[in-house]
Amino acid sequence: MSINEKALKLHETWNGKLETTSKTPVKSREDLSLAYTPGVAEPCKVIAENKDAAYTYTWKANTVAVVSDGSAVLGLGNIGPHAAMPVMEGKAVLFKEFGGVNAVPICLDTQDTEEIIKAVTYLAPGFGGINLEDISAPRCFEIERRLKETLDIPVFHDDQHGTAIVVLAGIINALKVVNKEAENCKVVVNGAGSAGVAITRLLLTYGFTNVIMCDKSGILSKTSEGLNWMQKEMMDVTNPAQENGTLADAMKDADIFVGVSAPNIVTPDMVKAMHKDAVLFAMANPVPEIMPDIAKAAGAKVVGTGRSDFPNQINNVVAFPGIFKGALEGRARQITEEMKLAAAKAISSLVPDDKLAEDFIMPEAFDPTVVEAVAQAVKDHIR
Amino acid sequence: MSINEKALKLHETWNGKLETTSKTPVKSREDLSLAYTPGVAEPCKVIAENKDAAYTYTWKANTVAVVSDGSAVLGLGNIGPHAAMPVMEGKAVLFKEFGGVNAVPICLDTQDTEEIIKAVTYLAPGFGGINLEDISAPRCFEIERRLKETLDIPVFHDDQHGTAIVVLAGIINALKVVNKEAENCKVVVNGAGSAGVAITRLLLTYGFTNVIMCDKSGILSKTSEGLNWMQKEMMDVTNPAQENGTLADAMKDADIFVGVSAPNIVTPDMVKAMHKDAVLFAMANPVPEIMPDIAKAAGAKVVGTGRSDFPNQINNVVAFPGIFKGALEGRARQITEEMKLAAAKAISSLVPDDKLAEDFIMPEAFDPTVVEAVAQAVKDHIR
Repeated sequence: MSINEKALKLHETWNGKLETTSKTPVKSREDLSLAYTPGVAEPCKVIAENKDAAYTYTWKANTVAVVSDGSAVLGLGNIGPHAAMPVMEGKAVLFKEFGGVNAVPICLDTQDTEEIIKAVTYLAPGFGGINLEDISAPRCFEIERRLKETLDIPVFHDDQHGTAIVVLAGIINALKVVNKEAENCKVVVNGAGSAGVAITRLLLTYGFTNVIMCDKSGILSKTSEGLNWMQKEMMDVTNPAQENGTLADAMKDADIFVGVSAPNIVTPDMVKAMHKDAVLFAMANPVPEIMPDIAKAAGAKVVGTGRSDFPNQINNVVAFPGIFKGALEGRARQITEEMKLAAAKAISSLVPDDKLAEDFIMPEAFDPTVVEAVAQAVKDHIR
Repeated sequence: MSINEKALKLHETWNGKLETTSKTPVKSREDLSLAYTPGVAEPCKVIAENKDAAYTYTWKANTVAVVSDGSAVLGLGNIGPHAAMPVMEGKAVLFKEFGGVNAVPICLDTQDTEEIIKAVTYLAPGFGGINLEDISAPRCFEIERRLKETLDIPVFHDDQHGTAIVVLAGIINALKVVNKEAENCKVVVNGAGSAGVAITRLLLTYGFTNVIMCDKSGILSKTSEGLNWMQKEMMDVTNPAQENGTLADAMKDADIFVGVSAPNIVTPDMVKAMHKDAVLFAMANPVPEIMPDIAKAAGAKVVGTGRSDFPNQINNVVAFPGIFKGALEGRARQITEEMKLAAAKAISSLVPDDKLAEDFIMPEAFDPTVVEAVAQAVKDHIR
């Protein structure tokens, strides 16, 4: 049976990968009077006086909502809220299994930006954080920005920032392997949606100065047509030489390629045109922009993908559980750029120098020190 | 330490009474590829083709949202969404512990009827049912009615219908004890909010014909001022003699008093003015409309309260877990009047005739046959 067949069968058996569980048994009238009426009125009264007491008396302190509108799910696209549920449940499972954080999948039956903002605002009181997921660009930028402005709990769009953090972590280590400095590197980011934009932003924050974004139509520059407002904003800080042309043009003399785009669109010739000791993160799922063996044969030094069956898996699961664990434990009101940088550095530092190699730039997802290191990095940067 | 002190301390220790738990471990790359990417895409694709498959591949089949706006919480009133959380968490605990049903507490940061309707509509895809809770009247009537019209999953306002079901169950048995027939009884329902209206409606559906509603201003009749739209609707089906006057006037010659109102407002003289073998359900919490010993001394035959420390506790917990368990298992799209009647009869039938007595009219909340009987009654009435 293939992984896909097995997954479908298992999902049927599970009938939901997640459940809610009581932390206290209710087996007697006394139990009932303590967990429910009349005793439950006491914490209610305390919280009514001071909203912050919700962090003491309810699950808010350790619970996030995983919110999607089903508009950009995996590589499947706009499949709607019902069909997005297995992914959000899966994400909630990973929050708990990797980070010890409770997570509730919420799939919204609207794709209107304003309505999503309102719905998330309304349901926020019971949660300590909001993880946005699989919401299409550019709506995801507006939704996240507005919610960050108004909510007093952290809001984090994992497709953007989780991806950006793990990519940066990988690049930090890849540059050690190839012995290059960020400020001297030309970087091509292919895919100008939520992940591409966030990756580019975080690379710039880290110290890269020459990043070129591409999409299906080629290099994005100030003269490109059809850019959305976020892509236009990005043109002020990317493509410093205002190059134009195809992806192949962009990759000439590039040191790093990051693909969050489509299968098999990078050719061996494009890799050969890159600088010596090129780094390629080909993260299209399940089929990468170029297969690792082909990229290597064409001269690439370090190749990462989103897949677990190749070396150097670039996987958000090393980031988001620790990000929220740290933010919740430290009662952060926002996930800041400093926290994201610190998280990326923490992840990269978990690969010891004596093990670092072209096929080993990322820590194991199942290494329990990862979540602790990321959580601590976040907590160290709460202001 | 009092129950209240102990409850507050325990809530601090619990730091949330509820958690989310994975039904499957994620300990290996293979686990990850089955519960999350790439395997998770398979159930997504099936649901995208057929929304109903969500009942097979996600937790929707066995999960309800417990939704409140914090506007009418216990006897505490409008304490807002944060302070309502301990109650909604407690309710979620009871759903799981008594009914085996997953439940997610959702406290909405809006008290606008239209916005609540929209928010619940948006979050519905991930849930198999909506339990509305502690929403003030008359908004609760409108919210429930509108959601029932548009959603394809059961919507149930427990303060209304859960209460009505357990009151009817208790009255069915109380009438056996006092050997009276419903159609010959005069009933006074004091409190014309969500519970009072729903109790009155279900009593009428069951076969009572002479029900008088009262509130703070006394008997409600067609000439009463300040009635809301729902109370006006109720005037077409209650108070057949169009009586006017005080609560004391209403209780003259009444056979049954149901209080969902305020502490200590029923005097011994009012009880003495009732018919022989009077039945009183004094359910104000924590202090009832009249204490059972006082009511009994004044001649009442059967007295019930909301409290676990007196006989005949009239407690929703014998109803709502089974109601939703049955509705979810039978994939009901609505909780109908027939289901509510059947549930009340099922609850009352669990007190065997040889045990039925003036101090034993309700089954034990912790009797595991209760939830099964209620669930079966609901399933038997799915059309």
